Amino acid sequence: MLKLDFHPAGRHFLQIPGPSPVPDRILRAMSYPTIDHRGPEFGQLGLKVLAGIQQIFKTRHPVIIYPASGTGAWEAALCNTLSAGDQVLMFETGHFASLWQKMAVSLGLKPEFIGLPGIEGWRGGVRADMIQARLEQDSEHQIKAVCVVHNETSTGVTSDIPAVRRAIDAAGHPALLLVDTISGLASADYRHDEWGVDVTISGSQKGLMLPPGISFNALSPKAIEASQRGGLPRSFWAWDEIIEMNKTGYWPYTPNTNLLYGLSEALDMILGEGLDNVFARHQRLAHACRTAVQAWGLPIQCADPSVYSPVLTGVMTPEGVDADQVRKTIYERFDMSLGTGLGKLKGRMFRIGHLGDCNDLTLMATLSGCEMGLQMAGVKLEASGVLAAMDYLAGQHVPLRRE
Amino acid sequence: MLKLDFHPAGRHFLQIPGPSPVPDRILRAMSYPTIDHRGPEFGQLGLKVLAGIQQIFKTRHPVIIYPASGTGAWEAALCNTLSAGDQVLMFETGHFASLWQKMAVSLGLKPEFIGLPGIEGWRGGVRADMIQARLEQDSEHQIKAVCVVHNETSTGVTSDIPAVRRAIDAAGHPALLLVDTISGLASADYRHDEWGVDVTISGSQKGLMLPPGISFNALSPKAIEASQRGGLPRSFWAWDEIIEMNKTGYWPYTPNTNLLYGLSEALDMILGEGLDNVFARHQRLAHACRTAVQAWGLPIQCADPSVYSPVLTGVMTPEGVDADQVRKTIYERFDMSLGTGLGKLKGRMFRIGHLGDCNDLTLMATLSGCEMGLQMAGVKLEASGVLAAMDYLAGQHVPLRRE
Amino acid sequence: MLKLDFHPAGRHFLQIPGPSPVPDRILRAMSYPTIDHRGPEFGQLGLKVLAGIQQIFKTRHPVIIYPASGTGAWEAALCNTLSAGDQVLMFETGHFASLWQKMAVSLGLKPEFIGLPGIEGWRGGVRADMIQARLEQDSEHQIKAVCVVHNETSTGVTSDIPAVRRAIDAAGHPALLLVDTISGLASADYRHDEWGVDVTISGSQKGLMLPPGISFNALSPKAIEASQRGGLPRSFWAWDEIIEMNKTGYWPYTPNTNLLYGLSEALDMILGEGLDNVFARHQRLAHACRTAVQAWGLPIQCADPSVYSPVLTGVMTPEGVDADQVRKTIYERFDMSLGTGLGKLKGRMFRIGHLGDCNDLTLMATLSGCEMGLQMAGVKLEASGVLAAMDYLAGQHVPLRRE
Amino acid sequence: MLKLDFHPAGRHFLQIPGPSPVPDRILRAMSYPTIDHRGPEFGQLGLKVLAGIQQIFKTRHPVIIYPASGTGAWEAALCNTLSAGDQVLMFETGHFASLWQKMAVSLGLKPEFIGLPGIEGWRGGVRADMIQARLEQDSEHQIKAVCVVHNETSTGVTSDIPAVRRAIDAAGHPALLLVDTISGLASADYRHDEWGVDVTISGSQKGLMLPPGISFNALSPKAIEASQRGGLPRSFWAWDEIIEMNKTGYWPYTPNTNLLYGLSEALDMILGEGLDNVFARHQRLAHACRTAVQAWGLPIQCADPSVYSPVLTGVMTPEGVDADQVRKTIYERFDMSLGTGLGKLKGRMFRIGHLGDCNDLTLMATLSGCEMGLQMAGVKLEASGVLAAMDYLAGQHVPLRRE
Repeated sequence: MLKLDFHPAGRHFLQIPGPSPVPDRILRAMSYPTIDHRGPEFGQLGLKVLAGIQQIFKTRHPVIIYPASGTGAWEAALCNTLSAGDQVLMFETGHFASLWQKMAVSLGLKPEFIGLPGIEGWRGGVRADMIQARLEQDSEHQIKAVCVVHNETSTGVTSDIPAVRRAIDAAGHPALLLVDTISGLASADYRHDEWGVDVTISGSQKGLMLPPGISFNALSPKAIEASQRGGLPRSFWAWDEIIEMNKTGYWPYTPNTNLLYGLSEALDMILGEGLDNVFARHQRLAHACRTAVQAWGLPIQCADPSVYSPVLTGVMTPEGVDADQVRKTIYERFDMSLGTGLGKLKGRMFRIGHLGDCNDLTLMATLSGCEMGLQMAGVKLEASGVLAAMDYLAGQHVPLRRE
Repeated sequence: MLKLDFHPAGRHFLQIPGPSPVPDRILRAMSYPTIDHRGPEFGQLGLKVLAGIQQIFKTRHPVIIYPASGTGAWEAALCNTLSAGDQVLMFETGHFASLWQKMAVSLGLKPEFIGLPGIEGWRGGVRADMIQARLEQDSEHQIKAVCVVHNETSTGVTSDIPAVRRAIDAAGHPALLLVDTISGLASADYRHDEWGVDVTISGSQKGLMLPPGISFNALSPKAIEASQRGGLPRSFWAWDEIIEMNKTGYWPYTPNTNLLYGLSEALDMILGEGLDNVFARHQRLAHACRTAVQAWGLPIQCADPSVYSPVLTGVMTPEGVDADQVRKTIYERFDMSLGTGLGKLKGRMFRIGHLGDCNDLTLMATLSGCEMGLQMAGVKLEASGVLAAMDYLAGQHVPLRRE
Repeated sequence: MLKLDFHPAGRHFLQIPGPSPVPDRILRAMSYPTIDHRGPEFGQLGLKVLAGIQQIFKTRHPVIIYPASGTGAWEAALCNTLSAGDQVLMFETGHFASLWQKMAVSLGLKPEFIGLPGIEGWRGGVRADMIQARLEQDSEHQIKAVCVVHNETSTGVTSDIPAVRRAIDAAGHPALLLVDTISGLASADYRHDEWGVDVTISGSQKGLMLPPGISFNALSPKAIEASQRGGLPRSFWAWDEIIEMNKTGYWPYTPNTNLLYGLSEALDMILGEGLDNVFARHQRLAHACRTAVQAWGLPIQCADPSVYSPVLTGVMTPEGVDADQVRKTIYERFDMSLGTGLGKLKGRMFRIGHLGDCNDLTLMATLSGCEMGLQMAGVKLEASGVLAAMDYLAGQHVPLRRE
Repeated sequence: MLKLDFHPAGRHFLQIPGPSPVPDRILRAMSYPTIDHRGPEFGQLGLKVLAGIQQIFKTRHPVIIYPASGTGAWEAALCNTLSAGDQVLMFETGHFASLWQKMAVSLGLKPEFIGLPGIEGWRGGVRADMIQARLEQDSEHQIKAVCVVHNETSTGVTSDIPAVRRAIDAAGHPALLLVDTISGLASADYRHDEWGVDVTISGSQKGLMLPPGISFNALSPKAIEASQRGGLPRSFWAWDEIIEMNKTGYWPYTPNTNLLYGLSEALDMILGEGLDNVFARHQRLAHACRTAVQAWGLPIQCADPSVYSPVLTGVMTPEGVDADQVRKTIYERFDMSLGTGLGKLKGRMFRIGHLGDCNDLTLMATLSGCEMGLQMAGVKLEASGVLAAMDYLAGQHVPLRRE
């Protein structure tokens, strides 16, 4: 087999904001022999994962599981609900919001991309007031959908989705609400039904701790109805036949069986720990990480503490320090991968992932690697972030041991 | 974890025509930890599998690897090369040809579906003469593509693709040639470049011995040119950006890393054995299987010996015997999965897969299970197919041991 | 990694009478990360496997689990209970009884090896009457232990242990009863307490479906008492400290943790299926195998039907046919391993294992390979054993499907 | 399967001085299907691992591989070379030296246990001068062997074996030199031939990064000769038959095949990295660890810098602080296992393992957990050991990236 690791010993630290490290337990589940996707065992597996994923999205409505990676689920959400030339209101929170907007153009939709100008828009969350103002202007209801990113992976900002819902309602506007929480699901609190989202898009390789290759559309009755009335030409992404066959635990075409084994195991792990415990753990680790960054005296990419992400933290490097050079040093010397600055942020920041299968000491290893790497790159740090994070973590009285 | 096997002991025999059994060696490769899909190791992996898969397709042109199952690759082939309302000539060889035709309708194309009437069309291969005749009528070149299935998984027929190419050329017609060899690749001889195919569609879960979740489009320069001129609205499936990024071993969006580990291992196994040896092995096992069916006195679904499939054999049950009841008995008593009769063939036949990670004794186990199951279902057999197959296999002087 | 398989495709058929094929489920369990053998999780694992293995031996008394292969457990049984120069009565049932006798000599004991003369003794079980007669002569009770093999792996004979117990009792003799059921445990009915055995020796790589590396001594109070009074110099094999530490689930020295994970999983599988079901399954497969051998017209090594082994069947080849040459042909042409003739039986017979993770179709594959191999070696067969076995298996109305 | 981890997320940090964490790569190798230990593939595996392990021990003479854990290899070394009542000179370096001495008594040998009095002897290495003095007194050569521990796992001291050899030679004494490097092999420099050792004992679960279950005796011609002349009653441990069968890659009794797969992989990893690089890596991490302990102001168990162990570091806790309580806090709050104080050191110190599959960031995680745990236990630290270790590691200019 291809030799895939340049480092001689010890475990690689994969601290990018996804794909996140896949727990051994899930890798083992994925090595169960592939079975007949039309046989009786498969139906049991199908029903189990379909029921479990509804709990993760907090929805009673159908969740589509695609045998495709997350970008596909973006396309699926758009092409099931929108028709050629439809106007869509999208909000620019960062690189992934921009990519989704670009996709909408490719599919023949007419996205209107609003947000704050320049790099400032990439340091905060969705401005519900701006969405409301725009919708109120649209008296003829030309805008068919509002598209926002819940957890912007390029910046480390987790927007307030209930506020967006309230904005749409306040404007009395019938547009669908489409939300991307690819990197937020199972890490940050998310409530598809309660928050009134019409389509939620997500993927497997973040909080669900799976390899990439599965993606999701969680639906509302309103979204299903829209898909029945129109949409773009589609077949692979079409919801209707999938919803019908899912009733017995099967899919119209070959699902990716071994990743579904992994999903089954991930659901056991996450629901076994309890979603609230999972969210609290992410908040704790994210707080520790930000404490370190603040001690270093470096700016956090997310400038608004009310929308700090529990999934990742963006760290801005000082003027004149190439963040990718820092990442390269850390990779080569300490065998750790960090996220690069994307789009407008290229070379200006790096991203620390602290999601999924992560614990206190993994985070401490991560922060140690960052602190050493920053110093080796000549960055003057105000104080040790490692010490600050340890103070925080040692001070927390979280009972980690299961009863 | 979900208990996925109803049988208490021993290995399940997965003898459907795909997903085929995944060798342990590939399952182990897939359990390598997920890495950063933007890091330097990944680029090496990407370049390796992209070069290897070209050898499998026998092409010097780009092969697109999608993080999606095979149905997606059908859609990709159509939406990159054809525009809304385009006429397409498709040939009905069986259930999968029909599903592809249905997809073309869903995508807004205008497929013309030709073939022999009734069930007869499902017992033979593509009739190149009929294609030629139809194209010759199309003097204005309204038909933009000819779509055929190389190895029809629902019937066990492997059509003559070079003959289709010759037919198109003889008609002097510029239509693209799109070929589905989802279940044929790496089992039956296939030559994308030499045969003049424009887009070849395939998947991972058959001859490549991988779980489902990866699919392919092998391209010709003419297909690439067509995609640059037009096509349906598309983003996830769009070739151009993928081709560009593949040059350095990366993908524009998250690939399904762990399945690519499996692909890397599968390529090592298949190219290590040698494609010609792989094809000869499939031919040998297929011949043994047909020898058994003929001894039983049951008709083989494929009525034309010149297009017998090396991948699977369809077995027709006598009038009054429900093939699915036979399959159920075999499943419950002997822990073996066989393929069901699809579409027009429902209840009339079952399918034996002898592809991928299969050897002589696996086939003998399979035929023993079939023979016992048929007898338990009250089918009168003319003679023992098991004995006939053993005669054939023991008589073959194939040196199986590697030097 | 070392390439360990000469055959290009498909699964190797490991049909030797142990090591038997290890189910995937157990291999996965063994890949759980190694933990601290002094930590709290380990104690839970230890207590679980110690309780479970008692159920397998059907004993309420201690079972010692050694981090060593089966030969070590032979030595352990002898050196804990017997002192230098002690007389031991051993019965020659085959090669493994002979090896155990040889070990007794090496350890400075004085074994008396009784049995029927020549090869005849290797075609039947222990003769309890001969043991009784010998013990009755020993009026001074110089004989300290009677050692017999329950399931003789070299011949396929399963001796009647209760009859040996009755013989010792009838002779009014205080000798300990030491029984080797290395290849019988969890395949053939065995009852340590009910049968009055003092030390039962077993191993992991047979009916327990584990790799080699774990072995067992099941004890009686009388054996424990003997070990406290005397024994040979010993430390690694000494029972006392192990019994003491096992009370809390630990061992005095480092246990082989990952094999204990496998044992935990094996116990779940076997006790989940139910020991009686496991035994019935072995009887069924053994009967089918013998039916085939009888149809071929070849003698079964075990000449006494009352002691046929449910674990393996010895097949005698005709005069002039080298059984090892037959095995070699089968290995090279059909990728199947069979057991060789051992000791006196070298070249005269081969052994078919049908134990552990084996089912009907695995056996049919095995018998097909044997039938083809015998024919290729020029052996004249009276009839097809494969057909005879299918008749038997298809006629059995065993509900294999779990409710 | 038994739930084996009390902590909800993230990887457990197994930082005891063995069993050390088993790399995924080795766990995958161990899940290769068990093969026939008498078949042709096995012989290849056997020859490969036998040749490789000689390179690790740096010997041209036979290395015995036992399917048993390390304690067994202690017994094997003694019972092959020494006879009942033989005098043995053993040196007390710590708990494991004491256990070995206890074993010698159990086996009927007459060990003389020398060393420094009280706890002082457990803070330094073997005193070659004391050995020489004692041997010089033994003018009749009653002492048959000198037994020392190379890397004392209970204290973190790595004794100078060449000095012991010189002492024996200076005394002109014919005693055999038996050395335990169970926890030193493949972590600390070791040269069986060059250093004139007669039997070296080692195990799998330390520097070789395997699970426990394999152990070793590396031999000298003089040791082999001694075993042919005498020794204790033995069979399982007897060298002669193993040496003979090893010539073709086989063993006289069933080896533990799956652990040998792991050994094969471990050899590829270690010899691929290069033994000198492996040793340098251990030295670097050990130095970083001691730097941290010194910054904390806590005494290192090893009081003599010339014999600091590259494998583990013993950390003494201040008077009144129960080291096991510190370990418990760290285990429960930070999911990390540390080694306990053994024997005389119970409650007085804990041990940090930094061997095998360990790298800079793993060590930083470990030190962070220790620092937080010590503070939570109320230990006053002079300075941050974490900062001190980072200074050291960031300052080192070791090219970690492979060319």
